[in-house]
Amino acid sequence: MDDSLVRENIGLMPYLVAASQILGVAVLAITGTWLSQYRGGFSWDGPEQFNVHPLCMVLGMVFLCGDALLVFRVFRHETKKATKILHGVLHILALIISLVGIIAVFQYHKKKNINDMYSLHSWLGITTFTLYILQWILGFVMFFLPGVGFAYKNRFKPLHVFLGLSLLLSTIATCLLGLTEKMLFSLPDDYSKLPAEGVLVNSLGLLLVAFGLVIAYIVTREEWRRPPLPEEQALSIDFRTLTQGESPTEP
Amino acid sequence: MDDSLVRENIGLMPYLVAASQILGVAVLAITGTWLSQYRGGFSWDGPEQFNVHPLCMVLGMVFLCGDALLVFRVFRHETKKATKILHGVLHILALIISLVGIIAVFQYHKKKNINDMYSLHSWLGITTFTLYILQWILGFVMFFLPGVGFAYKNRFKPLHVFLGLSLLLSTIATCLLGLTEKMLFSLPDDYSKLPAEGVLVNSLGLLLVAFGLVIAYIVTREEWRRPPLPEEQALSIDFRTLTQGESPTEP
Repeated sequence: MDDSLVRENIGLMPYLVAASQILGVAVLAITGTWLSQYRGGFSWDGPEQFNVHPLCMVLGMVFLCGDALLVFRVFRHETKKATKILHGVLHILALIISLVGIIAVFQYHKKKNINDMYSLHSWLGITTFTLYILQWILGFVMFFLPGVGFAYKNRFKPLHVFLGLSLLLSTIATCLLGLTEKMLFSLPDDYSKLPAEGVLVNSLGLLLVAFGLVIAYIVTREEWRRPPLPEEQALSIDFRTLTQGESPTEP
Repeated sequence: MDDSLVRENIGLMPYLVAASQILGVAVLAITGTWLSQYRGGFSWDGPEQFNVHPLCMVLGMVFLCGDALLVFRVFRHETKKATKILHGVLHILALIISLVGIIAVFQYHKKKNINDMYSLHSWLGITTFTLYILQWILGFVMFFLPGVGFAYKNRFKPLHVFLGLSLLLSTIATCLLGLTEKMLFSLPDDYSKLPAEGVLVNSLGLLLVAFGLVIAYIVTREEWRRPPLPEEQALSIDFRTLTQGESPTEP
């Protein structure tokens, strides 16, 4: 995979990036509207503390994480350093906001004497979040701290990209489980009559899937990878020559 | 993307393929055990008709479809024609078995007077299955019928691969929603105490996700793509020369 061989040919990418942002904003707007109009809005101390959970998870773990994956495609002519910093900042925001969302639901359960961690939603969610923390630490060590060799970074990068996208899709699956649980708990008799709230929440689920798949499509197009800037290219060739002896032939 | 440039370097692939098959068989065994031990087993005319649905969907839309995606990686030294036929046969089986599973749940609902198509599970499931049929028709026309130009096949292939993998992951998300619904309907008071059945079903959910991600990893490794056989390579170069004028520069 030689970056220098990839032509600058981004085709439909700008339209798909626009579509992803429209989907992302729609998902956030529908989540907010649903929780405000049908579930009593937001508070930290009252019974509406629960509602902080879905909003924070969709904002942090879906929207911000999704956009963090796109920065290397979208800001393709900025320096790699600036793009990495933006990637990191989006993930710091995502981490803080999703931690608030997780604390909200555990505090709510405690106050209401509801058992924690029994559902598939909670099992998949906690597995995903634990792997997200691990990915955060590994990514920070490998790509932000100085001193890690070019060969190691290059070997780790495809795994980092795959795990990042997997975590986004796994988060979206967790969201769908949360929406289903909430509908069955809150509308035990009415959900099967498909009231307006059910239509809204089901549509939110489909839009979340669409958001994830559009991001996945953009990120997995090999030909849309960020081309190295001229100075990076020279550097990369220098490093490759230097490390040729230990250059990995497999990831 | 020149196939001839891809080195034959399959690294960890055999181990990951083995892992995918162990996960796939585990998922099938756990689904069968769960429905037999806890949900009364299987019948077509009795109340156990429902149980045909999860078993058929996991066998057809998850296991067989997942394995159909792997054949081009696993049977890399067979002729392309033989590999395509195997891919098609697996998808014929998947289609028939999942149709039986879908008929089972609609018949069961009708007999029990349960509303259809109100839940997110059903919305995502029917969307995924409709797109699967569309993918089936398009794939058959583009890759099995004679007369479609090399340039068109090549342009369509990345989309076919992306949609195939997306449908597998979307199917798995649909399964998780189905498992959650079933737990909340069948164990409304006990699920939160995490009985043995809950542990089994939650574990099944996580294993389904692991199956999907291992397949996704294998299929998205560019360096593990099936290399063209010598005769295919010569043919492909001939075609490329012939069609160079209309050769697409973007997918």
